[in-house]
Amino acid sequence: MNTSFTFKDSLSLAVCLISILPNFAQADEGMWLFNNTPRKLLKEKHGFDATDAWLEHVQKSSVRFNSGGSGEFVSEDGLVMSNHHVGADALQKFGDKDHNYVRDGFYARTREEEKRCLDLELNVLMNIEDVTERVNAAVKADLPPAEAFVARRAVTAAIEKESLDKTGLRSDVVTLYQGGAYHLYRFKKYTDVRLVFAPEQQIAFYGGDPDNFEYPRFDLDICFFRAYENDKPAKLQHYLKWSKAGAADGELIFVSGHPGRTSRLFTVTELEYLRDTRLPYALERLHDLEVLLGSYSARSEENGRRAKEDLFSVQNSRKVFDGELAGILDPHFLDRKRMNEARLKTLAQERADLKDAVSAWQRIDTAQKLIAENARKYNLIEVGHGFGGHLFSTARTILRVAEERPKPNAERLREFGEAGRESLEFQLFSEEPIYDDLEQLKLANGLTSLAKHLGYAHALVQKILAGKSPRQRATELVSGTKLKSVEARKKLYEGGQSAVDAARDPMIELARLVDAEARAVRKIIETQDETKKQAHAQIAKARFALEGTSNYPDATFTLRLAFGLVKGYEEGGEKIPFQTTFAGLYTRAAEQKNKPPFDLPPRWVERKDKLDLNTPFNFVSTADIIGGNSGSPVINRNAELVGIIFDGNIQSLTEDLMYSDEQSRALAVHSQGILEALRKVYDAGALADELTRKAN
Amino acid sequence: MNTSFTFKDSLSLAVCLISILPNFAQADEGMWLFNNTPRKLLKEKHGFDATDAWLEHVQKSSVRFNSGGSGEFVSEDGLVMSNHHVGADALQKFGDKDHNYVRDGFYARTREEEKRCLDLELNVLMNIEDVTERVNAAVKADLPPAEAFVARRAVTAAIEKESLDKTGLRSDVVTLYQGGAYHLYRFKKYTDVRLVFAPEQQIAFYGGDPDNFEYPRFDLDICFFRAYENDKPAKLQHYLKWSKAGAADGELIFVSGHPGRTSRLFTVTELEYLRDTRLPYALERLHDLEVLLGSYSARSEENGRRAKEDLFSVQNSRKVFDGELAGILDPHFLDRKRMNEARLKTLAQERADLKDAVSAWQRIDTAQKLIAENARKYNLIEVGHGFGGHLFSTARTILRVAEERPKPNAERLREFGEAGRESLEFQLFSEEPIYDDLEQLKLANGLTSLAKHLGYAHALVQKILAGKSPRQRATELVSGTKLKSVEARKKLYEGGQSAVDAARDPMIELARLVDAEARAVRKIIETQDETKKQAHAQIAKARFALEGTSNYPDATFTLRLAFGLVKGYEEGGEKIPFQTTFAGLYTRAAEQKNKPPFDLPPRWVERKDKLDLNTPFNFVSTADIIGGNSGSPVINRNAELVGIIFDGNIQSLTEDLMYSDEQSRALAVHSQGILEALRKVYDAGALADELTRKAN
Repeated sequence: MNTSFTFKDSLSLAVCLISILPNFAQADEGMWLFNNTPRKLLKEKHGFDATDAWLEHVQKSSVRFNSGGSGEFVSEDGLVMSNHHVGADALQKFGDKDHNYVRDGFYARTREEEKRCLDLELNVLMNIEDVTERVNAAVKADLPPAEAFVARRAVTAAIEKESLDKTGLRSDVVTLYQGGAYHLYRFKKYTDVRLVFAPEQQIAFYGGDPDNFEYPRFDLDICFFRAYENDKPAKLQHYLKWSKAGAADGELIFVSGHPGRTSRLFTVTELEYLRDTRLPYALERLHDLEVLLGSYSARSEENGRRAKEDLFSVQNSRKVFDGELAGILDPHFLDRKRMNEARLKTLAQERADLKDAVSAWQRIDTAQKLIAENARKYNLIEVGHGFGGHLFSTARTILRVAEERPKPNAERLREFGEAGRESLEFQLFSEEPIYDDLEQLKLANGLTSLAKHLGYAHALVQKILAGKSPRQRATELVSGTKLKSVEARKKLYEGGQSAVDAARDPMIELARLVDAEARAVRKIIETQDETKKQAHAQIAKARFALEGTSNYPDATFTLRLAFGLVKGYEEGGEKIPFQTTFAGLYTRAAEQKNKPPFDLPPRWVERKDKLDLNTPFNFVSTADIIGGNSGSPVINRNAELVGIIFDGNIQSLTEDLMYSDEQSRALAVHSQGILEALRKVYDAGALADELTRKAN
Repeated sequence: MNTSFTFKDSLSLAVCLISILPNFAQADEGMWLFNNTPRKLLKEKHGFDATDAWLEHVQKSSVRFNSGGSGEFVSEDGLVMSNHHVGADALQKFGDKDHNYVRDGFYARTREEEKRCLDLELNVLMNIEDVTERVNAAVKADLPPAEAFVARRAVTAAIEKESLDKTGLRSDVVTLYQGGAYHLYRFKKYTDVRLVFAPEQQIAFYGGDPDNFEYPRFDLDICFFRAYENDKPAKLQHYLKWSKAGAADGELIFVSGHPGRTSRLFTVTELEYLRDTRLPYALERLHDLEVLLGSYSARSEENGRRAKEDLFSVQNSRKVFDGELAGILDPHFLDRKRMNEARLKTLAQERADLKDAVSAWQRIDTAQKLIAENARKYNLIEVGHGFGGHLFSTARTILRVAEERPKPNAERLREFGEAGRESLEFQLFSEEPIYDDLEQLKLANGLTSLAKHLGYAHALVQKILAGKSPRQRATELVSGTKLKSVEARKKLYEGGQSAVDAARDPMIELARLVDAEARAVRKIIETQDETKKQAHAQIAKARFALEGTSNYPDATFTLRLAFGLVKGYEEGGEKIPFQTTFAGLYTRAAEQKNKPPFDLPPRWVERKDKLDLNTPFNFVSTADIIGGNSGSPVINRNAELVGIIFDGNIQSLTEDLMYSDEQSRALAVHSQGILEALRKVYDAGALADELTRKAN
């Protein structure tokens, strides 16, 4: 149930600084909606014609990994490429004491050998419908926020349910422009997804945490899956053809993927909250988890395997937040933001039809203050930071399903709506192994931080600990719960309220114990978010009126199109070239004396002589990406795949807040490098052939 | 300027639970004063006669490492043994890009090859004088705390200065029983200390952080130095003879060393403060530093070398505090403490002469509340957590020396008293290398946490950051200061106020900027500590009256004698034997596939066949030890060295709060194992010969 976005577990930040200046399109900024692409800009600046057919083809060749990443179809037989670090969650889940697929990789030489993933869901965006008017009509402008929230939830659930019933497609209403627009996204879902190929993590994530977010890089961060339908490989109309030549210096490229979240439209108050409260809290928690998982992992190889994905995700987020906090602690950034905000207010003030917007900032300030007062409790008992591990969230899901399902669809907590039922069940009944020791460790740690943040003497903390120390309580809960068995989960899920009540499962009882308070604090946060949404909608309206709608909304983990140039940059007076080669990989390993995490997998040592060392390996471009874009295809004008996004450089870590093409770069694996490695290192000629069947 | 205590950087906790029960001596509890040893107990329980001569010999053979550990003389030619991890600070300081003595070890085959340490000071306790009456006479009982503090500082400084002038010995007044007694300790100092032998860290700290505080263990955690006087090896009357046989199962042993700090006499309120505020804050800070130093270290081998000692110390403390917090979060512990406290109060209430003591707890509560309100600021700007790195504390020392030295000795901040002048200069003019990158990293991190904890908008934070981000400000300060040069430090130190003012050194100016507020908050904390001291003195008086003085005070990093039995224990139904052997080391390495941190140094692989694998390597005993005891000799009835303390097991991590002999054990390297390794692995026969010249 990992809902974080790789490669960047973006909190929510970022400012479209340039957006209220006249010459908006001076840089390759933008995570554009497929139904609002900047055709004019592309034509004028790059002489490129984004036709409907081109856009539809790219859209339907793009894949969303529900575990938090992007991917693309790369053959007519359902072959999907993404990053190793996007697939790692799935790889991890079918490993055990004797098999470590994350570390060792995998290759199915035949269809029969392809391994079905336990709970991987892929989504393909089929179409978009603008439902802003219907949503706004249902949520009257003068409703108080708590009622507005309920009304919005109701109309959203109704739209989604109607669409699901009518089309059979997964249907999500997406909030855009922080509340300025609502679009209905319909996705085709694939839930039978099988693993085809993964390299060793040691080459996929070469250089480990130290080289993460760095450039030059040398990572074969790829992974291949195959989407199945009716137990047969999906037959596809749209998939990306391979470019054997791959990305060239200075070339125009596009990235079609699912940026997770940006915060470029945040107000100054929201940014200050981020700087003073949210990021420091998040970092404190991540440091805690990194040390916990790091020291657990170091105890034995098997521990290391069990915690590897969690640890990677924690370290990755920590690096992102560190970069963001450092960016936002630069006073010049907020000064500029403040200036821009003042200017927009002044402009709005001068127009009778936009005057209302001026008070919107004040309403955001008030809401933010209430959020600040409740966020810690919300994070601890509703988001679950005070518990940790899988079992508590599983228990809560089961408890709430029983309570929510009998309610009318529109009145349920959002995640229990009919439209999301299948995806929820898919997650809940996952056969992903659960390790008692790791669950206990995480739960004890969560309970300890609960006591720290709420205060040991807090009545709720005392109820939760039940006269025991966090370690004792965690041991008792983890060993006592039946929820480790999928069978038990199914029985309770299907048995409804009476079965859940009768079970007296200790973990469910713990979830029940905190549920009233958890729901209460969630309501406060959601109401204030709603207030902010309404206020942002007004600001967005003013912005549209003053700047036109030729703008893109903050990222929402929905499909977006970015574009840019393949291009190196300067750093500390040094020119950083646009690409690296295999030769560079071997040089880096030698410099670091082949010591972890710079050691090469044995196969790469043995096959060195077979490789053309001048083959491009990784490259950078100015495309505007962020966490969630991992695995996105990099394509050329002909929609041919020239690379695959896997990271951003260290300078890009403030992109959540603002775009810059000066030094920020998107990192990709080069399509030439992928082919060379598949053929020469992995003897995966059949896979390479499938990719290049129609290649140029 | 490392003032932490290895192996446990004890915060301050622990409760002598048994101390108000009648049958006190039921276990081998106690860190006894050399001038108040439990002779009767030793005689009755173990048939051992602790004669004056025996005690003087052991006392004068024991050595304190001012960097935070213990050691012992082991030959008449000034040879000193301690732990590798105690000596590591010194080893680290004469390393560079091409020499990594911490990692690779060192052996001086001749006296000429012995390497002089940059700033290592050894102390040997020569005698103890009880000055309680004089201190109490100067600090009238009815003085308000602020005045009492000044009076106590004055009388303490006067006593120390008089003693120094009279004897030429380092003279420290030590507070015992949390304020119940004051003793003057006189030390002989050695400042010309040379490195003789260190093994590779990989065998000294075998198993690294994962195995730290674990047992069974396989660590050759030893290091040899030689004390020099007048450029010649010190000629010693007292040193410990070697026991070739070493520790045997069930044997009575003694540990003579410098336990750093315990908190066994803490009140419930003080313990709650520890649980709710101090430990969580300390852990938050350590997690932050562990991640910072860990990711810096991983970037390159040289980074790893530079940060190694810092990182070890952080991980070590983190493990200690984790254990302590877990212990104190067990409600039964505080419940028992509460009961004992109530009982002592009741007993005191019943006696007219002790009645006053009853209000002492209330006064501690009030003082603790004020401390809680100021501790964060105190830690950040006075202790220096908000700055980080060496340069700031160096700058502050220079600034304050100029201000304090012109004052009468008795009125100075304690660390600038005449008695400590030599030690201060020795530290300040250390040639220890300073790395710009690491200083910047730590300073930027410190400034970020300053903004986090005091609030970004806080006037002091804004003054400190001076319109820059923490990273920019840190870069500017570290590159701008001249204090990296020892020459520059000396010039300013000797030049006094006018030279310091004229220098306009940016780091000194930063120290100046915060100095008024830092001194102010320090005054609040010191005054409240004084209040607590007075209250504790009253409680101690009651305790003495009710239990007699046959008790030991909390640890204070001064010489103590502990005793116990060499003895295994049970864990999870399994019997853990009292000792390990070399054979076990090789088994552990094989189990872990020889992967870091379980890899063996090459020399240990090559020499395996030469070793007698049945030789005892490490062993455990019930002696009552804590951080600061690292390097303490373990001796038998004849005062022969049978081992050397290097760690406690995981169950011992609550010993700061209370002693238990059930599972808590002190870990030591066996004297047999040391000889075998020196002769067979390191070809250090000359050293082994020197050790055993008079051995049995």
